[in-house]
Amino acid sequence: MPRQKLKGFTSFESVESALRKFLKAVTIEPDVETLDIVDAVGRVASHQVKALRDYPPFDRAAMDGFAVRSEDVISASEREPVELRVVGKVEAGSREYVRIGEGEAVMIFTGGRIPEGADAVVPFEYSTLLGDHVLVFKPVPKYGNVSRAGEDLHAGDVILERGTVIRPWHITALAESGVTKVKVFKPLRIAIVNTGDELRDYRQARGKDEVVNSSGPLIEGYAKEIGCVTTWSRIVRDDVNEVRAAIEKGLRDADIVITTGGSSIGEKDLVPEAVEGIPGSELVFHGVNLRPGRTAGAYVVNGKPILMLSGLPVACFIGLEVFLKPLVRKLYGVKEVPEPTVRARLTRKVANVVGFRSYYRVVLYSMGNVIYAEPLRLTGSGIISTLIRGNGILEIDENVEGYEEGSEVIVKVIAPIYKGKPHFINW
Amino acid sequence: MPRQKLKGFTSFESVESALRKFLKAVTIEPDVETLDIVDAVGRVASHQVKALRDYPPFDRAAMDGFAVRSEDVISASEREPVELRVVGKVEAGSREYVRIGEGEAVMIFTGGRIPEGADAVVPFEYSTLLGDHVLVFKPVPKYGNVSRAGEDLHAGDVILERGTVIRPWHITALAESGVTKVKVFKPLRIAIVNTGDELRDYRQARGKDEVVNSSGPLIEGYAKEIGCVTTWSRIVRDDVNEVRAAIEKGLRDADIVITTGGSSIGEKDLVPEAVEGIPGSELVFHGVNLRPGRTAGAYVVNGKPILMLSGLPVACFIGLEVFLKPLVRKLYGVKEVPEPTVRARLTRKVANVVGFRSYYRVVLYSMGNVIYAEPLRLTGSGIISTLIRGNGILEIDENVEGYEEGSEVIVKVIAPIYKGKPHFINW
Repeated sequence: MPRQKLKGFTSFESVESALRKFLKAVTIEPDVETLDIVDAVGRVASHQVKALRDYPPFDRAAMDGFAVRSEDVISASEREPVELRVVGKVEAGSREYVRIGEGEAVMIFTGGRIPEGADAVVPFEYSTLLGDHVLVFKPVPKYGNVSRAGEDLHAGDVILERGTVIRPWHITALAESGVTKVKVFKPLRIAIVNTGDELRDYRQARGKDEVVNSSGPLIEGYAKEIGCVTTWSRIVRDDVNEVRAAIEKGLRDADIVITTGGSSIGEKDLVPEAVEGIPGSELVFHGVNLRPGRTAGAYVVNGKPILMLSGLPVACFIGLEVFLKPLVRKLYGVKEVPEPTVRARLTRKVANVVGFRSYYRVVLYSMGNVIYAEPLRLTGSGIISTLIRGNGILEIDENVEGYEEGSEVIVKVIAPIYKGKPHFINW
Repeated sequence: MPRQKLKGFTSFESVESALRKFLKAVTIEPDVETLDIVDAVGRVASHQVKALRDYPPFDRAAMDGFAVRSEDVISASEREPVELRVVGKVEAGSREYVRIGEGEAVMIFTGGRIPEGADAVVPFEYSTLLGDHVLVFKPVPKYGNVSRAGEDLHAGDVILERGTVIRPWHITALAESGVTKVKVFKPLRIAIVNTGDELRDYRQARGKDEVVNSSGPLIEGYAKEIGCVTTWSRIVRDDVNEVRAAIEKGLRDADIVITTGGSSIGEKDLVPEAVEGIPGSELVFHGVNLRPGRTAGAYVVNGKPILMLSGLPVACFIGLEVFLKPLVRKLYGVKEVPEPTVRARLTRKVANVVGFRSYYRVVLYSMGNVIYAEPLRLTGSGIISTLIRGNGILEIDENVEGYEEGSEVIVKVIAPIYKGKPHFINW
């Protein structure tokens, strides 16, 4: 029986295929800036960075104790300690030159430079100081308790690869190896075009009947979390020319344009129409086997992306997870760190729509040693309370029909796991 | 046999006991500021926040289709469709008042307000538009494909609890429920006192023999990652009066003072001596069963903490993980989100020192379906390359003697997992 399609989708492309085409079609490159290493924490290295000097710069004590010639204490034991003459003291910061000969030792503290002649450190625990002599109760091997020059980092060792997210310990290694500034990517700039005659900015909306633009602020917050900045976010009326003008301004002002609304199967779906009118625009994909979020699509104009997402917040969020995050990671060259997951037991059966990749929000809670996952409703992509109360996301692949009650599933954790069953579960 | 102790530790307190005392002794409260909701992403809510209005504010379509009286289409089927008269159209943003009577329908788009008289939406998929009439091929239950007013959030529902880390989806819920500003904690201010005659600032150090202050920058970066700010970080000579003056200034300028160096068993361990001279100072703990990091300690002055950490970067880092992070979480009231972990197979045996909690850095790499964990050396707390090349941390409890080669262990992931065995593993 023939049905009218009303600009509907005839088929839904797989997420994999759509994402692959999207990542390939976008050819922009983020800008680069140079920062002091301490200011670079949380940013992404745009170039490989190598150590400029050895670390440690010289042989030094790895423990507090006495620097000795290891051959002098080879026979030392609890019963027959070796007695050495203490000829000096080396603090961590000492710069004076000290040397020892046979039968001699130097009191030394962690980080202190090993005196010439010495090749090992006897810890205080295995020694007793008696005036200007020390008794050693245990032998120590050559280089025992010594950090050798360059053993940690050699000049030329790679500290940061392009795409490394800079963490606190990188700063330590950079500082130790003589690097004071690093090149990092400037945050990618995102322009947000929220379409819809009905939308009101949250700062102005007051009336009970007003529809708040909540996807715009969602994208702003999401952009910040993944290391981007929002150049601007504006609400545009459902008028092809106004939408096109806003998108063109976005292409000038920013690296990435994201639209919300106006790309669904409704009559007012004017974002594609607006973009088709921009010279050089190329459709990448439109309509994917994603629930929620099947109306997502993308164009590029000279390699610059226009990502079209739903105006319904949960569908918009899933679109950001599935398309924006991988794009930003690719542009910065960031490798994936596994996100926190837990193994949980499903409290109810969940079904998948054949051929779709579904994202269920779940409530994770622990009772005894078991973590349970209570699935929340999937339909109604405007259902934001599932994101507030839910603390996990269960992804179901297109080739999986669903999971039975009691199944063990792997759930991505987005907020703390409840201790005990929360009161709102028995809705 | 009696041994000279040289200000050594006679015993090491358990990490649990030391941390419990530390969290109890610190009684400061972070300041609060009010931010626009979009600017609050990544910050911590200082107060509970409730919805100010229902969401959705009215019954609305959850799909594109035709708003109908469900009783009119109860008999609809593929063979015998029900024909209804289409009397209007409702876009998502429509504000005009529309009503339907028996045998009537209204074309409606997702988010559109359900007309008076209608109680369900027949999706386009189950209908065919013929001029000003529509054929409906399937019945729909009462409220089918309708989002009821307030079904998502009721005015008064809790959106943020005190201590919630504000994520993008919270912004959506806040915007939808009429909240435009939120109270969040101001970042805790940290003053860093790096002790050591030998230390040079990384911006100035140039000579091969110079010892760079690398723990200060480590703490600055770490503070930023956990939502704090560094008020200042300075290098202080090994002089009790100078150290005391710096700590007292830190207590005036900041919420938390962290010192590095000068609290070990060496002769120059002057931080405790300096702090003892500050009126009202109380020792909380000093010396813990932690490897690396056993020299950690803390004082409070009027409930304000002075955390004493090693100047050796890895020991300092573990001290931040074990003492600073839990303190900051407690002060902000943040609940713990599980950190990303993987189950991995040990490539070598690892041994633990009885009674100590050890932190091994490991290299995680995948081959086939198995993830392997190659332990890196634990000793030499200055070994920062283990943090650069290592991408996981294996914690071994004090009551565990170690793990055999081939054991399955749970490892915390701090950087991307290598695909295949990295070249530097065969050191």
